[in-house]
Amino acid sequence: MRRTTGMALLSPGGTWEPFTVVRRELRPDDIAVRVAWCGVCHTDLHAAHALAEGAPPLVPGHEFVGEVTETGSAVTAFRVGDPVAVGGVVDSCGVCPACRDGEEPFCTEYPTEAYGGTDRIDGTPTLGGYAREYVVRESFAYPLPAGLDPAAAAPLMCAGISTFEPLRRWDVGPGQLVGVVGLGGLGHLAVKFAVALGARVAVFTTSPGKEAAARELGAHEVVVSADAEAMAAQAGRFDFILDTASAKHDVTPYLHALRVDGTLCMLGIPDRYEPEPLAMAFGRKRLTASAGGGRPRTREMLDFAARHGIVADVEKVPAREVGAALARLERNDVRWRFVLDLRDLD
Amino acid sequence: MRRTTGMALLSPGGTWEPFTVVRRELRPDDIAVRVAWCGVCHTDLHAAHALAEGAPPLVPGHEFVGEVTETGSAVTAFRVGDPVAVGGVVDSCGVCPACRDGEEPFCTEYPTEAYGGTDRIDGTPTLGGYAREYVVRESFAYPLPAGLDPAAAAPLMCAGISTFEPLRRWDVGPGQLVGVVGLGGLGHLAVKFAVALGARVAVFTTSPGKEAAARELGAHEVVVSADAEAMAAQAGRFDFILDTASAKHDVTPYLHALRVDGTLCMLGIPDRYEPEPLAMAFGRKRLTASAGGGRPRTREMLDFAARHGIVADVEKVPAREVGAALARLERNDVRWRFVLDLRDLD
Repeated sequence: MRRTTGMALLSPGGTWEPFTVVRRELRPDDIAVRVAWCGVCHTDLHAAHALAEGAPPLVPGHEFVGEVTETGSAVTAFRVGDPVAVGGVVDSCGVCPACRDGEEPFCTEYPTEAYGGTDRIDGTPTLGGYAREYVVRESFAYPLPAGLDPAAAAPLMCAGISTFEPLRRWDVGPGQLVGVVGLGGLGHLAVKFAVALGARVAVFTTSPGKEAAARELGAHEVVVSADAEAMAAQAGRFDFILDTASAKHDVTPYLHALRVDGTLCMLGIPDRYEPEPLAMAFGRKRLTASAGGGRPRTREMLDFAARHGIVADVEKVPAREVGAALARLERNDVRWRFVLDLRDLD
Repeated sequence: MRRTTGMALLSPGGTWEPFTVVRRELRPDDIAVRVAWCGVCHTDLHAAHALAEGAPPLVPGHEFVGEVTETGSAVTAFRVGDPVAVGGVVDSCGVCPACRDGEEPFCTEYPTEAYGGTDRIDGTPTLGGYAREYVVRESFAYPLPAGLDPAAAAPLMCAGISTFEPLRRWDVGPGQLVGVVGLGGLGHLAVKFAVALGARVAVFTTSPGKEAAARELGAHEVVVSADAEAMAAQAGRFDFILDTASAKHDVTPYLHALRVDGTLCMLGIPDRYEPEPLAMAFGRKRLTASAGGGRPRTREMLDFAARHGIVADVEKVPAREVGAALARLERNDVRWRFVLDLRDLD
């Protein structure tokens, strides 16, 4: 087995500490990745809060970039030294309808998650990219396009694909008015992608103080969602709204803001969505939710990001300071994504 | 003013009684319809339960057919003697984006409903098709195609268009597996339309006793929704599910039954829908709701029904017995739609 250093939460409510992470020896189709940068996702915070007594140590991280340091005997797509990016899904059954359609996150046998999952071959718990090395099947690693700053590109692998996939799925483009609810790690990338796709973009935010930042990101309009009058004025305007807010909130005002046959796509996962039936039926509004994206879409996203120069706005943090970063993330005190510098663990 | 006889509920909890209905004199673009048959919709039951003390008498009825008996001076589309059908929307602003798109039910100024609404010209409350005569703008009346039995065609104007519109909106057709939840006035027409559109059709019902009836209507499969094992076996199978059940129920099992990017369309209007976010995000499931259909779709539906010989399965009831019919409808004791014979009021 291989050993590397990661940052782990060893017990519920504990502190984040350097931890020896054991990685498998390379299988024929594996590559070893020397992780340089790993984004800090809201999911990591949820996982920390959800850590159960007696559970294996939590090593989060599902949006990271690094360099290939070793390749298995059958690897063809990568060479040592290649810059590489890895996201939330690191394996899947490969034969179910979803996998055959390139929709690996919805693998019928459930995909193997970068952390918090179970390796489908050896049955061990997966440990994520808050570590200096990661071992992954080559077919679930992506060449990092030249020209993208690696630290700022790391969040593309979760925040990026999570927002790009629904924007593309619903054909967002010129002539459309698109709303982005919430300006954070996901929302700020959604704004950049939607603008680059040619749509007119409005940001819905609870914080009037974020207006200038939204406009700097390219948003054409800003709506303060706590302002009932401003919200009422949006009725029937939007073709598509991407709701990136993670906390539970009323979706009905956003349904009202949609035009006939418009779509509200949720990225947050509260206990329930509770749309008002009449707000949906009057105008045949659509509520959907999205999670990640398959391999073809991920490649498309990286290509699109490279062509349009889109990366996350990040705050770099030495990996050992992840605890402080997560505490700040919990207060939404970040513009707009933390990325951990794993070189800090050398 | 014109006078005719209708069946009305005069006060909350009262009995249904013959009632003199006053209709407006014909405006230049109006026609007078001698109503022969009017379907009894679940909405009529809701309206009866919702009747407030001191409200105007309730004369329901928003799916009816009859014969043109008089035409306004500017009418061009109808002549005296023409068979005609009228549905839930009898006027709209005509200039908002929804109206310009032929989506009159979603008129920004709110459409004028066949009953329970307010005439947009004289401000009087609208009284419905449980009456021997109705006066309507010619542009919201439809020629009843030859070859359709008038009594059985009446429910097409609400139950029919309400199910046909979402089936067409979501491109139901050959190669697709379509679910219909609930076998009643709406559900039985949904089965007929979906089968005629070329889809494979499964009926979800709480009543094992309805299996034979479902198959007679053309359903290829029947799933008893109370059977958890049978429901679990549907996971990931359906392209589209049309949920016609009016009572509040858990939508999540139907979300699980959808394939990736599949759609669950609700026709019932409980207080809230409460889908499980994970059941939506895993597979990007879509929840939508639909209400009626615009004029172009209504014409398409009548044409499609005529070509395929589709009408409702009805039980004919003399108009004076509407109270008993509504009581039976409340117990779901009807196969599948009551239609009132308004000639009973002569």
